[in-house]
Amino acid sequence: MRITLIGAGRVATHLATTLGVEHQIVQIFSRNLDHAKALANQVNAQAINQSEQLNQQTDLVIVAVSDQSIPAVIQSIATYLPNSLIVHTSGSTSLDTLGQIHPRVGVFYPLQTFSFEREVDWSETPLFVEASHADDLALLTVLAHSLSNRVYQYSSKQRQTLHLAAVFACNFSNYCYDMAKQIVDAEQVDFSLLFPLIVETANKVTVSDPKLMQTGPAMRGDQNILNMHSQLLAVSQREDLNKLYELMSEGIFKRHHLH
Amino acid sequence: MRITLIGAGRVATHLATTLGVEHQIVQIFSRNLDHAKALANQVNAQAINQSEQLNQQTDLVIVAVSDQSIPAVIQSIATYLPNSLIVHTSGSTSLDTLGQIHPRVGVFYPLQTFSFEREVDWSETPLFVEASHADDLALLTVLAHSLSNRVYQYSSKQRQTLHLAAVFACNFSNYCYDMAKQIVDAEQVDFSLLFPLIVETANKVTVSDPKLMQTGPAMRGDQNILNMHSQLLAVSQREDLNKLYELMSEGIFKRHHLH
Repeated sequence: MRITLIGAGRVATHLATTLGVEHQIVQIFSRNLDHAKALANQVNAQAINQSEQLNQQTDLVIVAVSDQSIPAVIQSIATYLPNSLIVHTSGSTSLDTLGQIHPRVGVFYPLQTFSFEREVDWSETPLFVEASHADDLALLTVLAHSLSNRVYQYSSKQRQTLHLAAVFACNFSNYCYDMAKQIVDAEQVDFSLLFPLIVETANKVTVSDPKLMQTGPAMRGDQNILNMHSQLLAVSQREDLNKLYELMSEGIFKRHHLH
Repeated sequence: MRITLIGAGRVATHLATTLGVEHQIVQIFSRNLDHAKALANQVNAQAINQSEQLNQQTDLVIVAVSDQSIPAVIQSIATYLPNSLIVHTSGSTSLDTLGQIHPRVGVFYPLQTFSFEREVDWSETPLFVEASHADDLALLTVLAHSLSNRVYQYSSKQRQTLHLAAVFACNFSNYCYDMAKQIVDAEQVDFSLLFPLIVETANKVTVSDPKLMQTGPAMRGDQNILNMHSQLLAVSQREDLNKLYELMSEGIFKRHHLH
């Protein structure tokens, strides 16, 4: 397949480099030409930063930009790619919205967190595909299977549910790590001491229900420790963390002690 | 060494089974004799449920009970073990409190989350030791090194900071997983789809600062997605999750957009 990537960020980079192994990446489009060039060089593609430069000889256009830019980006490229299948990679953007802009649209959503520094195990990454035409859905399904063993044809509604859950499971847990780091940093205690705990906590829920794996003072209803922690945060003038500490603790307590 | 365990819960079980390899576990004490017997059988020890039955011929007594029970438990056993070193395994209980109850007290705190279902990699588990006498501190340090490569002589203050951070990094991140599971369960979406994301998010912060690894709509300040998620939670009548969603999102946004 001949594939065009719109965007040169984390998702675009991981997709281009892995798809580039079996397929031809034709062009990398980014408003920032330097970013486009950096990625294009890795996958032997042409770097462009103007819609007029888009090559119509492409089978699939993957729009991997931030959610809020997707409609405007598709609007700006659709005229130059009237016959191409254009897909986005977003968890929260419904297919309907885009169907009004372009006749052949779809979704290619990888449920994973991407960073420039780390490789992704694509074979284990769940991929969700959706398309306005059955032929396009079949094409996206085949492409997804060439990357991953876990491919699903999900509706926009199911995908949105997953994305909301992913915000809790990934963005919020990462912020919990960030808050933990701020707490130990303030006392010159080494954050790496928490690594075995962080990794074990994550691994545990892949084999058992997180509700059953819950531990800690809030779950036990240990008011002495809860008060002590609240005082520690107040003394450190971290009322922001204190508010979150209290709301999380209240949530955990109610989850385990109320029906 | 001859070691006595007070408690038969998760921490007591993991400590007894690993320490029992190189040392003799003399007795397992639990108010619930069946629990004591179940663990005692595993480590070839005597099961007891009365303080009067405590064997004075022991080098170390490890009190692995819930934080709020520690002072009362030590009070009830100290008379029967006047010469023994008695340690607890708690992150938040200071040594001072216990020094008023018994002359030889200490701390043996493993920074890890324990469950009955999973083995613990003791060699990588950070162990924090503290004692009221230098000899006892030396003894605990040697014992700790027989289990782990990561042994630290930390003060009660430093240990409390670590424990507070651990609540964020472990208890709260687990609750984030639990909330994510509730969200997908309500829509009959499979929770295991989130496993690669959960594990990768945890592994990432062991190689890079969690602040730099933050992703998601709150960090981008994407108000459309934030509103959509909030509406999804409101429609599902999950105002509890909605409040947490908003406070976490506000925290993440401020962390990345204010100075």
